[in-house]
Amino acid sequence: MLYVSGVNYEQAKKEVKNATVVLIERGENLFEKIAKQSASKKFAVDTVSIESWQALAKAVGGEEKLGSVENEIRNLRKIKDETEIKLIRQACKMADRGIQKASEIVRPGIKEKEIATEAEYAMRKAGSDGTAFDSIVASGFCCAYPHGTLQEKIIENGDFVIVDLGARYRFYSSDITRTFVAGKATDKQKQIFETVKIAQQKAIESIKPGVAAKKVDQIARQVIKEAGFYDFFVHNLGHGVGLEVHEPPILSPDSKDILDTGNVITVEPGIYLPGFGGVRIEDTVVVTKAGAEKLTGAPYFPIK
Amino acid sequence: MLYVSGVNYEQAKKEVKNATVVLIERGENLFEKIAKQSASKKFAVDTVSIESWQALAKAVGGEEKLGSVENEIRNLRKIKDETEIKLIRQACKMADRGIQKASEIVRPGIKEKEIATEAEYAMRKAGSDGTAFDSIVASGFCCAYPHGTLQEKIIENGDFVIVDLGARYRFYSSDITRTFVAGKATDKQKQIFETVKIAQQKAIESIKPGVAAKKVDQIARQVIKEAGFYDFFVHNLGHGVGLEVHEPPILSPDSKDILDTGNVITVEPGIYLPGFGGVRIEDTVVVTKAGAEKLTGAPYFPIK
Repeated sequence: MLYVSGVNYEQAKKEVKNATVVLIERGENLFEKIAKQSASKKFAVDTVSIESWQALAKAVGGEEKLGSVENEIRNLRKIKDETEIKLIRQACKMADRGIQKASEIVRPGIKEKEIATEAEYAMRKAGSDGTAFDSIVASGFCCAYPHGTLQEKIIENGDFVIVDLGARYRFYSSDITRTFVAGKATDKQKQIFETVKIAQQKAIESIKPGVAAKKVDQIARQVIKEAGFYDFFVHNLGHGVGLEVHEPPILSPDSKDILDTGNVITVEPGIYLPGFGGVRIEDTVVVTKAGAEKLTGAPYFPIK
Repeated sequence: MLYVSGVNYEQAKKEVKNATVVLIERGENLFEKIAKQSASKKFAVDTVSIESWQALAKAVGGEEKLGSVENEIRNLRKIKDETEIKLIRQACKMADRGIQKASEIVRPGIKEKEIATEAEYAMRKAGSDGTAFDSIVASGFCCAYPHGTLQEKIIENGDFVIVDLGARYRFYSSDITRTFVAGKATDKQKQIFETVKIAQQKAIESIKPGVAAKKVDQIARQVIKEAGFYDFFVHNLGHGVGLEVHEPPILSPDSKDILDTGNVITVEPGIYLPGFGGVRIEDTVVVTKAGAEKLTGAPYFPIK
């Protein structure tokens, strides 16, 4: 049963195939209606706010008749089927186009926001339904903030520029990051860039069904540690991508996930030096029987 | 106290002015940390999922130590201050640019998605940080779905085309809708269009501090009723706009809100005829001592 308000009723009746569409009339209480119409003894909810939970509990006659199944549903979503992988693959190709556009226009004197504007437009022109998340373009000292966002900053000569984009296609997401240098790179910048690139490559090579996600995280972290930047890799190695841009499994030092065929995950090591700048390199990959296949495919654009 | 993970720590330390920034170390439990560090006897939460609520309740020693203040916070946000109105005004001007671009390109043969792409690009070029919500471009029979979204449809000659856009600027939203006809309008289309336009004008004219929001809804609904389309205005007249694109106050037949100076609201009557198409006209307005001032200002683009 799908309950919808008047604003979505005609569309739902036309498009929904495997459920009865029920109109919530003006003034009707959704939760009371569910409680009344359903013969179930117990209700399972995906996830709701505490306010909705309490209202639902009241309508169905007590919290003991409610159960949260958020984790079960999110865990089911870890393994993508062929249709899902196809859609994510398409979303990844659109994200590649955004990165390609960014690579063409990044230079000293351009605003971070202009790069986001043009990259998003390129993704849209490639067929994207919109962005999977707010695009991140972070340059210079802002690069040391992995999720810096305001984008009014003008890029300066020699800045590291992190561009982190995702396209959304038919409700599925993609996620890719490339890092550029506006102008000529210093030796230190080259060293950091190469370290992150190698960390990502080694991590991707280690991926196969049955491997612990924390092991993959550890392989990337080890490369960064050996280069002397351990304290500056301040986030997890990666996350699942699907209907949400962050979903299980998680690639982190304390992850309990074991990778399996059909997982779609990001691999995104980074090094962020406060006051100096940062580098992140990220791809979305699918776990196959043979290992990991990259779904995003933009070049790494070696810095010079 | 602001608790952040490593990924946001450097940025938070730099940018946060009126709170102590506390790092959540890897492996630490946020809720246990809050419970331990705070001397408060009772904790107020804005809104959280039921899963977080339960985890927090466990950490602080029982649900009786928790209270939800979602409604208090949302009610505080009904009245915007000058800074907020200024930002929303800027977001509205950006949305106008999107509508202007849509008006220039709407024609038989173009895809709905192409209009969304170009309109969003125009908003971004005008300074928008992104969209306030997924743009709606719905043509022909899809126009009868107020929130139709997939946008792969090619616009046909004679179609009604609803374009509903919002820009986001420094976390504030805007919301505007205009309806076009691709090609020459029929008399029936003109009648529906004029009815919606008059309904919106009369509703806006009725707005002033102290007026019941349901009264404003009723004025628009009455115009539509007298024209014989009462059953086809299937949603509320409007909603508050601010940090969220839908927030209090609400303009609906059963609203309990009384309008006040500083409310920023949409006024968006619509008529949707299944199988035929629909019209919606929407502006974002601010309630002032003198009445309602329109913050969105795109022309109505009279149909011909």
